[in-house]
Amino acid sequence: MNINDYWTGRRTVRKYSDKEVPDSLISEMIEKASHAPTTGNMQLYSVIVTRDAESRARLTPAHFNQPASTGAPVLLTFCADFNRFVKWCEASGAEPGFNNFQSFMSAVFDTVIFAQQFNTIAETEGLGCCYLGTTSYNAPMIAEVLGLPELVVPVLTLSVGYPDGEAAVSDRLPVDAIMHTETYRDETPAEIRDRYFSYKESLEESAGFVAENGKQTLAQVFTDVRYPRSTNETFSRVYYDFIARAGFDWPKD
Amino acid sequence: MNINDYWTGRRTVRKYSDKEVPDSLISEMIEKASHAPTTGNMQLYSVIVTRDAESRARLTPAHFNQPASTGAPVLLTFCADFNRFVKWCEASGAEPGFNNFQSFMSAVFDTVIFAQQFNTIAETEGLGCCYLGTTSYNAPMIAEVLGLPELVVPVLTLSVGYPDGEAAVSDRLPVDAIMHTETYRDETPAEIRDRYFSYKESLEESAGFVAENGKQTLAQVFTDVRYPRSTNETFSRVYYDFIARAGFDWPKD
Repeated sequence: MNINDYWTGRRTVRKYSDKEVPDSLISEMIEKASHAPTTGNMQLYSVIVTRDAESRARLTPAHFNQPASTGAPVLLTFCADFNRFVKWCEASGAEPGFNNFQSFMSAVFDTVIFAQQFNTIAETEGLGCCYLGTTSYNAPMIAEVLGLPELVVPVLTLSVGYPDGEAAVSDRLPVDAIMHTETYRDETPAEIRDRYFSYKESLEESAGFVAENGKQTLAQVFTDVRYPRSTNETFSRVYYDFIARAGFDWPKD
Repeated sequence: MNINDYWTGRRTVRKYSDKEVPDSLISEMIEKASHAPTTGNMQLYSVIVTRDAESRARLTPAHFNQPASTGAPVLLTFCADFNRFVKWCEASGAEPGFNNFQSFMSAVFDTVIFAQQFNTIAETEGLGCCYLGTTSYNAPMIAEVLGLPELVVPVLTLSVGYPDGEAAVSDRLPVDAIMHTETYRDETPAEIRDRYFSYKESLEESAGFVAENGKQTLAQVFTDVRYPRSTNETFSRVYYDFIARAGFDWPKD
């Protein structure tokens, strides 16, 4: 494929065909992705490959049984991982000091960079993927199913398989909305709505979401249905507490 | 270029030539990168382009004047951004509930995915990039220089320019170190050192780091020199407090 045509034409794939994804291909793509940039070349991540029917049956409830999770032949759980690095330090007469927030965030950055590199490699190989954001919601359940030790925290999951049919290309905000020159260009709510969100609001798909959910505006679908405050706050508590239990201490208030 | 040769041959570039990087190219690459996956298609990020000599002189101290920051023609600061989305909600009769940890983490995931997509696009265009991990250390200073409003948090910076000379390809751990099948394969410190880190320890470059820093082992260079506990803990406090001041409330202890 010509990589220049790939970037703007890429699509998230939630429906997968029966075509098998060989173990060797998964492992080759993981190896390629591991060459993505990483903090101080520490590679502060691991990926757990779930393929067995039994493991999947235990894992997919953590993703609220989304079709992308139940229908994909392979699930990859990308985890922030200081366990391996700290053990290496311990075996090498070194005293690690990584059980803190800043180190956790470095591991998260490494993990997401690695996951996204995998996503791009897989998509350019003709596979389809979908990130499952539920990973940070149900980290405790996922850690239990995957047997994660201390200092390992689930961050993102990718469902992976060959596409069934052709998924749609999603709309995006105009580049002016996300790019600032020299300093941040802060604008009023009305300016932001009119300049950047009017195209998204005008889409037939958006009108459909508003109608289906009995709302007045598209924004209300996000705040009242998809990402309501109560859900965000509940899972903030769960993830925050899980990260501490995994061994990363929060700064004391 | 053939994308299949790119993945394992990519290199981080810290020295840049005088060749100009046109504004139009930066903006095109940002537009392409914005098609990367994003949580619920909310695009919870912004990027601030720094190019003016005066802005750069104010910004590079936040990166401890690393050569990659002072020598690059362009710096891109990638920020987790709920400001734009929340203002759109406010202009649309919707009540946003995103000032919490889970929402912050979603924005971080979006931001890093977007940054890494940009990095890959730039590298496959022949540009060279280097992530500056100092962004999460000195977020308060960066926010001040870039004029960041509420709900906008600096996450990662990329220095961007055409390479001067040819940088080295970095070593990586064997794929077995980072990949687990069905459940996490926890190993002892000695196993981890012998199975996964012996190649890295055997490199001439590693021996050089150990000698230069007057240490006994490579791991001690990481724990005593590059990422000591005191630095990690100081900047944990700074970033944690900054995120709260930016408007994302931490769960109460």
